Amino acid sequence: MSETWIEETLYDNWGQRFRVVRELARVRSPFQDIVVFESDSHGRVLLLDGVVQITERDEFVYQEMLTHVPLFSHPDPRRVLIIGAGDGGVLRRVLEHPGVEKAVMVEIDGAVIELSKEHLPSIAQDAWTNPRAEVIVGDGIDYVARAPDASFDVIIVDSTDPIGVGEVLFTDSFYEQCARVLSAQGLIVNQCGVPFMQADELHETSLRRAKFFPHVSAYVAAVPTYVGGFMTLGIASKASLAGQDVQSVRARAQAAGLVGKTQYWTPEIHVGSFNLPPYIAQHLPAGKA
Amino acid sequence: MSETWIEETLYDNWGQRFRVVRELARVRSPFQDIVVFESDSHGRVLLLDGVVQITERDEFVYQEMLTHVPLFSHPDPRRVLIIGAGDGGVLRRVLEHPGVEKAVMVEIDGAVIELSKEHLPSIAQDAWTNPRAEVIVGDGIDYVARAPDASFDVIIVDSTDPIGVGEVLFTDSFYEQCARVLSAQGLIVNQCGVPFMQADELHETSLRRAKFFPHVSAYVAAVPTYVGGFMTLGIASKASLAGQDVQSVRARAQAAGLVGKTQYWTPEIHVGSFNLPPYIAQHLPAGKA
Repeated sequence: MSETWIEETLYDNWGQRFRVVRELARVRSPFQDIVVFESDSHGRVLLLDGVVQITERDEFVYQEMLTHVPLFSHPDPRRVLIIGAGDGGVLRRVLEHPGVEKAVMVEIDGAVIELSKEHLPSIAQDAWTNPRAEVIVGDGIDYVARAPDASFDVIIVDSTDPIGVGEVLFTDSFYEQCARVLSAQGLIVNQCGVPFMQADELHETSLRRAKFFPHVSAYVAAVPTYVGGFMTLGIASKASLAGQDVQSVRARAQAAGLVGKTQYWTPEIHVGSFNLPPYIAQHLPAGKA
Repeated sequence: MSETWIEETLYDNWGQRFRVVRELARVRSPFQDIVVFESDSHGRVLLLDGVVQITERDEFVYQEMLTHVPLFSHPDPRRVLIIGAGDGGVLRRVLEHPGVEKAVMVEIDGAVIELSKEHLPSIAQDAWTNPRAEVIVGDGIDYVARAPDASFDVIIVDSTDPIGVGEVLFTDSFYEQCARVLSAQGLIVNQCGVPFMQADELHETSLRRAKFFPHVSAYVAAVPTYVGGFMTLGIASKASLAGQDVQSVRARAQAAGLVGKTQYWTPEIHVGSFNLPPYIAQHLPAGKA
């Protein structure tokens, strides 16, 4: 019997490939090519423009680190804006924080939401119908530009890499608007790629964030299907995040009822993830943490 | 022009592939298939039986973590036994510790050493001719069985996975002999695979080590070409390794002249690497650290 494999096309000279059990959807939306398939190794997989976004088996790593780290780094996050993340996994994790009063998710491509609801229901679970959630199909750039000053405590940007549809989420004007929209102790997190393969991405976006935020740092997560070693999550904030300690993060997690409910994130990993290997740290602007 | 790709065959349903610039060697030794090629993305790559062992570009991650963590976890390592690691990269890092008086490396496959000397000279650098090094082409199992009691402080096992030629390095009798050969505060480290893909490997070898060592734990490293998230390095010791702190590890590294000379390992990462994500920690025997 012939085998079908799907090869990721993120890099032109190296990458991962999956044995395909069956293809579930292949759609050309107005924004991108979307493929959902059932893999032999990772459950269902979502590809956008040939790049792996999420798999059922390892989604917890990226989602937990993209959500719990910023939400526990902010002293009291009540209003959270999510840009992208059309699969709903970040929304689900944000809503796990009982202190969050409102989570607004703005995804530009309604087809990603619809295909995720149909084929990846385990990722968002019941987040879509949570009364604290507002899901908007629209342009995140426009949304931020029109949002009132200081109207969010945390912004989570779960975008594709800074090519294609995600490119505008890595610009000066976007970060400037985000700084305006964030409250006094506000912070923004966004994925900065895998620096072993894409070091420029971390370097350039860190310099841009540093123009509008006094504190710019990054933390790492080892996401199985974002191959190439640690991926980096860039964080920019109005207040310093230095000096977070395991005990206070654990107390926050206990109060939120999240202790023992995560598979990757722990208070120790939260604090430790800001300790960057030198090969990554060298790409950050010095003295900005 | 047609492209040549080499696909890793470690897993039959998922894996990485490299675009090949040129193949440098393809040898069938008495022990295994050996391939060395120049990749477009990672410099030169060594494959054993189709599985990536090392690449020029990311070797520092695995080698630094496999060496500096055990050597700084032991209070005063003077005699170090390395089993496997025919590329010489671990030997080089062990010799960077000035307190090490003798490093014995036992590699079963002389062809790996010869091909590494010829095609991967940057990995071992001048370790081969260091007067503190003794390089033996022979069977590590036999060597350990014949070694005197308490003759080594640290044993580093840099083997392939527990299939094929490396299988005997994961058995009860091997660990029993290692415990005998280690000195009073001795410890042994060995790679335990990528638990997201190979959870049984960590679980089973941890149970085996626990039969002969009072303290069994593990730490993680995000190695770019050991794809699938964190790889786990299992460590078993006669004295507890709990309570290592950043300050004392840093003092040790300063005394050894290693501060600022590493690209992945730092005192913070050393200590933090023992904090396992729950999805990994669940595979270790409880209460043995």
